[in-house]
Amino acid sequence: MAQQERAVRTRRAVLEAAAAVFAERGYAAATIAEILNRAGVTKGALYFHFDSKAALAQGVLQEQIATEYCVPRELKLQEWVDAGMTLAERLPREPMLLAAVRLSADLQGRDVFGSAWPAWAELTGSVLTAAKERGEVLPHVVPEETAQVFLGAWIGVQFVSQAVADWADLDHRMSALFNHVLPAIAAPAVLVRLDTAPDRGARVIAEVRQRSTVPLADANS
Amino acid sequence: MAQQERAVRTRRAVLEAAAAVFAERGYAAATIAEILNRAGVTKGALYFHFDSKAALAQGVLQEQIATEYCVPRELKLQEWVDAGMTLAERLPREPMLLAAVRLSADLQGRDVFGSAWPAWAELTGSVLTAAKERGEVLPHVVPEETAQVFLGAWIGVQFVSQAVADWADLDHRMSALFNHVLPAIAAPAVLVRLDTAPDRGARVIAEVRQRSTVPLADANS
Repeated sequence: MAQQERAVRTRRAVLEAAAAVFAERGYAAATIAEILNRAGVTKGALYFHFDSKAALAQGVLQEQIATEYCVPRELKLQEWVDAGMTLAERLPREPMLLAAVRLSADLQGRDVFGSAWPAWAELTGSVLTAAKERGEVLPHVVPEETAQVFLGAWIGVQFVSQAVADWADLDHRMSALFNHVLPAIAAPAVLVRLDTAPDRGARVIAEVRQRSTVPLADANS
Repeated sequence: MAQQERAVRTRRAVLEAAAAVFAERGYAAATIAEILNRAGVTKGALYFHFDSKAALAQGVLQEQIATEYCVPRELKLQEWVDAGMTLAERLPREPMLLAAVRLSADLQGRDVFGSAWPAWAELTGSVLTAAKERGEVLPHVVPEETAQVFLGAWIGVQFVSQAVADWADLDHRMSALFNHVLPAIAAPAVLVRLDTAPDRGARVIAEVRQRSTVPLADANS
C-alpha cells in the first residue's frame, strides 16, 4: 500500500473512532485515549492528522456533509425531501452523522469547534433557491427563512425521536414534518407530485447502491 | 400570616429557586445545597415539601403549564398561535419555563422525573381537536400527529434560537414556524385571519395584564 493511501486510511480510522466517541459521550467527556484505543493507531499517527480534540471535532463536522445519496430529480423540491429522508434513514446508523448532530448542539463547545448548522441551512437554502428559480416554490417564500425554520424543526424532531423512540420512528416523524411544511412552500401542482412517504429515504438509498458500480461502504455494518 | 399561607409561600420559593438552578446548570449538576441557599429556607422546610431532587424536578415540570395568558378567541387556531407566541415571549424571562424545557430534554433524567412534552403535545392536540370540530382545520389533519410535529419543531426552534441568539430572535423564529405550518392545517378562510406576527405574544401578554384586576407578578423582574 502506498504511503499516501495509508495516511488516508489512518486519518479515516481516527475520524471514525472520534465520531463514535463524540456520538456516545459528547465532546466534554470524550478523551483522546479512548479515541486512540478505538482507532487502533499510535498517538503519533493521530497527532500527525489532528493536533487537538477540537481539531478532531472540526474534522467530524466537515466530514458529515457527504452527498453520495444526492440523486438529481426532475423536481428540486424532491431532491430536498430526499436529502432529509435519507438523512433520517442514515442518522441512527452512522456515528459520523450522530456525532455531527451532537457536536453542533453543544452549547459550550460550538464556539470552540464550530457547528454543522450553517452548512445544513445553506444546503436547504440553495436547493430552495434553485427550486424557486424553476417556479416550484410559492412566490412569497424566502429560502433563507425557510432554511432556518427547517433547521430548527429538523433538529427538534430528531431529538424527540431519539428521546422517545431511540430514533425508531425518525422516518415517520420526518415524513410528517415535510407534510406539514411543504404546503407553505411548494406550488400546488408540484406539491401533489412529491413523494414524502416514511420509506422514501430507504428507497433512495437502495436505488443509489444498486446503481453504483463501485460498492458503497455498508452504512449498517 | 396564616400557617397555610406561609407554607404555600415557602413551597413557591423553593420551586422558584430549584427552577433557577435547574435552568442554569441542568439536573445532574444541580445541588440541594444551592437550591436551599437561593430559596433562603431551612433544609427542614424544603424536605417538608419535596423529599428529593427528583421531586423538585417533578414539581417544576408540573408548575410550568400555567394558563394565565390563555384568552378565549373567536378562532381556536388563534388560541393555539397565542399559546405558542406567549410562550416564546415568556421563555427567555421565566426560569420556571426554561427549567421545564431543559429538564424535559434531559435524556438521562426524564426517566426519573418525567417530562413536560406529553402535556405540551396534549395541549396542542386538544386545541386542534376543538378547532377541527368547528371546521377551522383542513379535513385530513390528524391533531395528534400535528401535535407531535409541532412539539419537535418548537423544541428545535427554541434550541437554535438559544444557541445562535441567546433567545433574542425567538419571537421571529416562532412566528416563522407558525407561518410554515399553518398552511398545512388551517382552512383557507381561517388562515388569512390568523395573527402570527412576531410581536403577537407581547401584545397578548400586555392585553391580559391590562385586563387583570389582580395585578400579575411581573415576569420581567
